[in-house]
Amino acid sequence: MGRWRPDARVRLMEAALALYGERGYDETTVAEIAERAGLTKRTFFRYFADKREVLFWGSELLEQQMVAAIEAAPASASALSMIGAALDAAAARFEEAREFVGLRQRIVASSHELQERELIKTSKLAAAVTAALRARGIDDDAAVLAARMGTTVMHFAFERWVDDPDRTPFQRIARDALARLKEIASAG
Amino acid sequence: MGRWRPDARVRLMEAALALYGERGYDETTVAEIAERAGLTKRTFFRYFADKREVLFWGSELLEQQMVAAIEAAPASASALSMIGAALDAAAARFEEAREFVGLRQRIVASSHELQERELIKTSKLAAAVTAALRARGIDDDAAVLAARMGTTVMHFAFERWVDDPDRTPFQRIARDALARLKEIASAG
Repeated sequence: MGRWRPDARVRLMEAALALYGERGYDETTVAEIAERAGLTKRTFFRYFADKREVLFWGSELLEQQMVAAIEAAPASASALSMIGAALDAAAARFEEAREFVGLRQRIVASSHELQERELIKTSKLAAAVTAALRARGIDDDAAVLAARMGTTVMHFAFERWVDDPDRTPFQRIARDALARLKEIASAG
Repeated sequence: MGRWRPDARVRLMEAALALYGERGYDETTVAEIAERAGLTKRTFFRYFADKREVLFWGSELLEQQMVAAIEAAPASASALSMIGAALDAAAARFEEAREFVGLRQRIVASSHELQERELIKTSKLAAAVTAALRARGIDDDAAVLAARMGTTVMHFAFERWVDDPDRTPFQRIARDALARLKEIASAG
């Protein structure tokens, strides 16, 4: 108990999500999460600042990988094709953790505090994408608008993906939504 | 005092905003708003359910007028040109009340409770615009995406308009932003 194990983070996340789902986020304590995972509170705090951060772990990495995809796009890439590359990076992260992400989604939706935190993370992500587009030479207004189109498509695709009984890949849903967005914009 | 006056609503709104700005939203009572306006609490409650609703009065009308603009668009109108018409309707509402809207914006930004209420109103507006587009024969996905492009442009334009020292009309900023959005989408 409590000694370092390679899978401690994953076990803590699984234990936390199971407990949040069973008895509610507010009613669950860190001690209970650690116990369910067969670890100590001390070990919990080695991985997470508090019980909320269990749900937001990975959002930094998601942001970094979306930004890296924009940085790695070809010199000739348009703003929207860089957004497409960032969404592909998001797709890879989501697919790795479909069960976690779906369960997490329902827990976040159950709490005002968590929803607020989620909105802050979304706006931080949009700001990071905007900055990455600017660094690629996209002008200020276009960078802001393209980043917001990106978050629009990401949310749209996420909602369809997370409950899809056919388990259509996120990447395909997001790419289709981006194509629809272009179609709508060019028709008008 | 307290008898019907044609301008009671406006006076109550002005008094409320002045007090919220001076001493903070949380610290202001309905009694103080009524007193500042030279009216009674009873009169206040004839116009507003509570002190929060002073800040959200007009949002129903904004929604109705945006929806009406979509309904009135020509039969051949594209989804995005209907969004353009809805934004023109919003522009007319905002220009009528530039001072109020600017002050209101700062007050809403100062309170979590108010920001949360604002997010709910925004999502209600997006849902109403989506439904209006569907009623005009736009398919489900396109209606959702176009409505979200509309709220993106509305927020983007609003942020630029509300603090613009040159007082550029909202309509022009929104139309320019919509044109930028099309340009971004067609380039990629």
